[in-house]
Amino acid sequence: MQNSFNIQNKKYDDIKSLSKEELRILCQDIREFLVEKVSKSGGHLASNLGTVEMTVALHRVLNPYVDRIVFDVGHQCYTHKILTGRADGFDKLRKLDGLSGFPKPKESPADSFIAGHASSSVSVALGMAKARTRLKEPYNVVAVIGDGALTGGLAYEGIANAGLSGEPIVVILNDNGMSIGGNVGSVAHVLSQMRIKTGYHRLKKVYWETVGKIGPLYRTLHRVKERAKKTLLPGNIFDDLGFYYLGPIDGHDIEKLETSIKWAIDLKKPVLLHVKTTKGKGYLPAETKPDLYHGVGAFDPAIGITEVKKENFSTVFADTLCKLADNNSRICAITAAMVDGTGLSEFEKRFPTRLIDSGIAEGHSISMAAGMAKQGLLPVVAIYSSFLQRAYDMLIQDIGLKALNVILCVDRAGLVGEDGETHNGVYDVCFLKSVPNMTVWSPASYAELQNYLTTAVKDANAPVAIRYPRGAQEEYESLSSGTSEIIKNGNDITIITYGVMTNEAIKAAELLSKSGVRAELIKLNRIFPLDTNLVFESVAKTGKYIVAEDVCNTGCVGLDVSHVLSEIPGIKGRLLNLGDGVVREGSVRELRKLCKLDSESIAKAALELCNG
Amino acid sequence: MQNSFNIQNKKYDDIKSLSKEELRILCQDIREFLVEKVSKSGGHLASNLGTVEMTVALHRVLNPYVDRIVFDVGHQCYTHKILTGRADGFDKLRKLDGLSGFPKPKESPADSFIAGHASSSVSVALGMAKARTRLKEPYNVVAVIGDGALTGGLAYEGIANAGLSGEPIVVILNDNGMSIGGNVGSVAHVLSQMRIKTGYHRLKKVYWETVGKIGPLYRTLHRVKERAKKTLLPGNIFDDLGFYYLGPIDGHDIEKLETSIKWAIDLKKPVLLHVKTTKGKGYLPAETKPDLYHGVGAFDPAIGITEVKKENFSTVFADTLCKLADNNSRICAITAAMVDGTGLSEFEKRFPTRLIDSGIAEGHSISMAAGMAKQGLLPVVAIYSSFLQRAYDMLIQDIGLKALNVILCVDRAGLVGEDGETHNGVYDVCFLKSVPNMTVWSPASYAELQNYLTTAVKDANAPVAIRYPRGAQEEYESLSSGTSEIIKNGNDITIITYGVMTNEAIKAAELLSKSGVRAELIKLNRIFPLDTNLVFESVAKTGKYIVAEDVCNTGCVGLDVSHVLSEIPGIKGRLLNLGDGVVREGSVRELRKLCKLDSESIAKAALELCNG
Repeated sequence: MQNSFNIQNKKYDDIKSLSKEELRILCQDIREFLVEKVSKSGGHLASNLGTVEMTVALHRVLNPYVDRIVFDVGHQCYTHKILTGRADGFDKLRKLDGLSGFPKPKESPADSFIAGHASSSVSVALGMAKARTRLKEPYNVVAVIGDGALTGGLAYEGIANAGLSGEPIVVILNDNGMSIGGNVGSVAHVLSQMRIKTGYHRLKKVYWETVGKIGPLYRTLHRVKERAKKTLLPGNIFDDLGFYYLGPIDGHDIEKLETSIKWAIDLKKPVLLHVKTTKGKGYLPAETKPDLYHGVGAFDPAIGITEVKKENFSTVFADTLCKLADNNSRICAITAAMVDGTGLSEFEKRFPTRLIDSGIAEGHSISMAAGMAKQGLLPVVAIYSSFLQRAYDMLIQDIGLKALNVILCVDRAGLVGEDGETHNGVYDVCFLKSVPNMTVWSPASYAELQNYLTTAVKDANAPVAIRYPRGAQEEYESLSSGTSEIIKNGNDITIITYGVMTNEAIKAAELLSKSGVRAELIKLNRIFPLDTNLVFESVAKTGKYIVAEDVCNTGCVGLDVSHVLSEIPGIKGRLLNLGDGVVREGSVRELRKLCKLDSESIAKAALELCNG
Repeated sequence: MQNSFNIQNKKYDDIKSLSKEELRILCQDIREFLVEKVSKSGGHLASNLGTVEMTVALHRVLNPYVDRIVFDVGHQCYTHKILTGRADGFDKLRKLDGLSGFPKPKESPADSFIAGHASSSVSVALGMAKARTRLKEPYNVVAVIGDGALTGGLAYEGIANAGLSGEPIVVILNDNGMSIGGNVGSVAHVLSQMRIKTGYHRLKKVYWETVGKIGPLYRTLHRVKERAKKTLLPGNIFDDLGFYYLGPIDGHDIEKLETSIKWAIDLKKPVLLHVKTTKGKGYLPAETKPDLYHGVGAFDPAIGITEVKKENFSTVFADTLCKLADNNSRICAITAAMVDGTGLSEFEKRFPTRLIDSGIAEGHSISMAAGMAKQGLLPVVAIYSSFLQRAYDMLIQDIGLKALNVILCVDRAGLVGEDGETHNGVYDVCFLKSVPNMTVWSPASYAELQNYLTTAVKDANAPVAIRYPRGAQEEYESLSSGTSEIIKNGNDITIITYGVMTNEAIKAAELLSKSGVRAELIKLNRIFPLDTNLVFESVAKTGKYIVAEDVCNTGCVGLDVSHVLSEIPGIKGRLLNLGDGVVREGSVRELRKLCKLDSESIAKAALELCNG
């Protein structure tokens, strides 16, 4: 009964026993369920609507608890979660203590691996296949990767190595003709070339229709097919890289999907199964505008998404950059498959030749920016904090060592909320500070973001990073100036913070004043290199300090502050941060509370210090 | 006269004016010079001997001070250095204040970019080409990349993006049929397929012989060639990725090289020029054993390299791993194109099916290891510290978040010496500590390395990193036990260190005792998570401390120690480290002195603390 599941008040014992008609109804139920639930909770919609049949077919051929299905990125795993008995969890999808929006082995043994960042599935699956073979176990390993994720170099490394290994492994290429935005890179071109080679496809149709029915003919047919393949489909990129290429097939035809997945497994070698899907399939608004329905907030499914995007740090960044680019023709913007997410779609409209979307290729984006800066341009690279981890080496080698004039706009810095542990931007303070010649600014408001970006463009002569959070500014809307500023005076304890955590610190200071404790509040604007003059003076006066920041402990600003302050005898301090940085799903407010970084926790820690 | 240079007591004003015979003699002189100089100073030999003609041809077609030649990795740049007037510097090649073994813009404006890590050249060159086009400047951009570097995902990202851009750029593929060891990955297979397509090659031979002489025929010939290309060379991987493929051509025929480089430039689009070279060309021992002559120490050129490799941390690691693998069939070893460098060639001989060489693909190596560990194997990944930077995101996402049982053997940790700033392993303490669930051990001796590796294999249930330096152990050969140990008692000051820096600390303590200062010496074995019990007790007693470590300041162990000790009132401490981590060429001993991390500097800092 491990394979049982329920959906829309129907209970299923075994997906493998369903008839064609029952499967059609099941897929319809799943789609209705997805639209209903995601329109309430928010989440990834279009990608999940596009992979319903593919996931059903996988579950009919494989046992997800024994075989290993490795989803790339993983935001297309909702149907998989439903089919493994987790439909009830969708009421708390991406909520605190609820269901993760990504595969999570802790949540179910059917989730073979964690995911969240793109392009790793083939490498992970190859490792699993090698373990399977070495330990002489009988299970199958299948990676499911989108065409967008194929633009990442890691996918290429995985495919090249898997192809060479000869290890039996199936890579399903979920080709919806776009990644998050329109697809980028030559890979899209290669795929579109493949799609038109219909002669081979027609032959395979006959093969599928026959091989399912007449077992003994298998070997002969296989030989015929092999020869036809050579003639009709001369060398595509996957063949070159050692894969046996199958496809393209209709990703919404369960029967064909089942047959071809079985075929791919039976080949017992590295096989790439090219599946064409329609993002948003079955829900018209999402089919029409799949980009808009990629990651959504709550909306009315009867009407679709109507609201205009609200102002947030990303849009403010992009608007400011447009203004700066008007007056400085050296400015170019670079993003890694996140034109919309980083707010740069407006920049793209206004300066189409000055916006470069590199695809999911953060490392390349940074190295290319280095080359541009070396030869006189002013590249501004907008990448999410957690995805910038991919470019750590390039930041050090290509930008840092040469002190090149590249401006990094690090979006989604700090806690991001609902996307959970793979997406929190909690390591960038650590890794950016270690990049030679780097300067890091941390705005707490739109006005500050505008200010730091403008200054970075004006004064730029070395790498500068500006890190800002997901979403909108909070209560604090002022413009702090200089490298740091005292934004509230007090004599009893010094609270040091930066970025949007300033909001919690301000509220903490208010709570403390009710208890008769007058906190001095210092907001750091430039967090690296650190200017500790104000901090030093303040703590020399108060004798107690707290540093509150929503990043991991290693390399945090608090440790720098603590070291500088260690020269003052007899003081007491506490560092409040995210420890190892692993924080689950929830709203940012909930997570701050959970991690004891909310105003009440800060005030409590301050009181403890003050009371000895 | 900017293009003048001298070699072997001959002075040249302009390489472009030389006759065919003069070029032959020049190349011979360069080879003799390279063998003579590198056999004295050590350095990269085989790769430079293989690229003499290619570099001469590039310098005849291009102006290296205006056009941009981007060398990938860069250890093949010696001829380029000679041709840009730096032959005199070879007496101090890779020495303190001498010539770098890699391209270095600080050294000469002819060095267009810094290099050291593989696979970035196409991305950097594309950035430069974009700047050139946008700023309407007339120079050419050429990337020179080896077939080994093509195994890296970053190169794929660069090629896919360059191909799509249509930006005029020439990528010269220096194909010597091997990277550092034998070549790995499907790319090698693809290239070998290309090499045998000789029909096309013959046509191009006619083209070259004609097009140089009869200008007006160019367009017609071009059209004929285009048609022939389609017929004889149907779609290779570079065509698929939007490049115009030329080749393969003989990389030791200057005339052909010149013609084809000119042709490639004239095409004004992304062109891949496939050049076949022989590594070690012209010096028989190196031609016969190119691997042995990749990176060399001093040797007698008349005899060649004779000495057997000495014991060092890498060989001790590999020997220990072989013994452990004998008794544990779950152990597999993974390396990224560094089978020899990491000492794993012995393991490969003994366990050929359990050694995986992923090519220059650090990210893939880590993600694959994660998949292996998830399914029950015990992968041991040996990668150099500075190259592991490439896998930072995969360490966090694929190993850290899931707390997977992967053992990282981080070779070349700390100062590496002659290879300079791109190769120092000075960031790993920072970035490894930020990986969730990570434990980091730092052996100072062979015995300790054996011990930590054995324990990691026995107890493994989460990621463990063991970081050890390049080369041999120093004076300290003991086996310290536990997470930390007092290796010398004293009451006046506490000196805290780890790894091979222990040697400097021991000598510093001896120097101090001559000045009547009794230092207590604490050696940390496990540097993360830190067990500060001994440190706390000691400093509570001495009131003064120094933390000495050869890593960058951000995320260093000293900051953790300082924070813990801040609870003790009235103490004084100093952190000795490498600041931003940028350290030039020199011997490790020289560099420690330069960075004030040698015994005398440590003793001096201790005395200053004690005296005031």
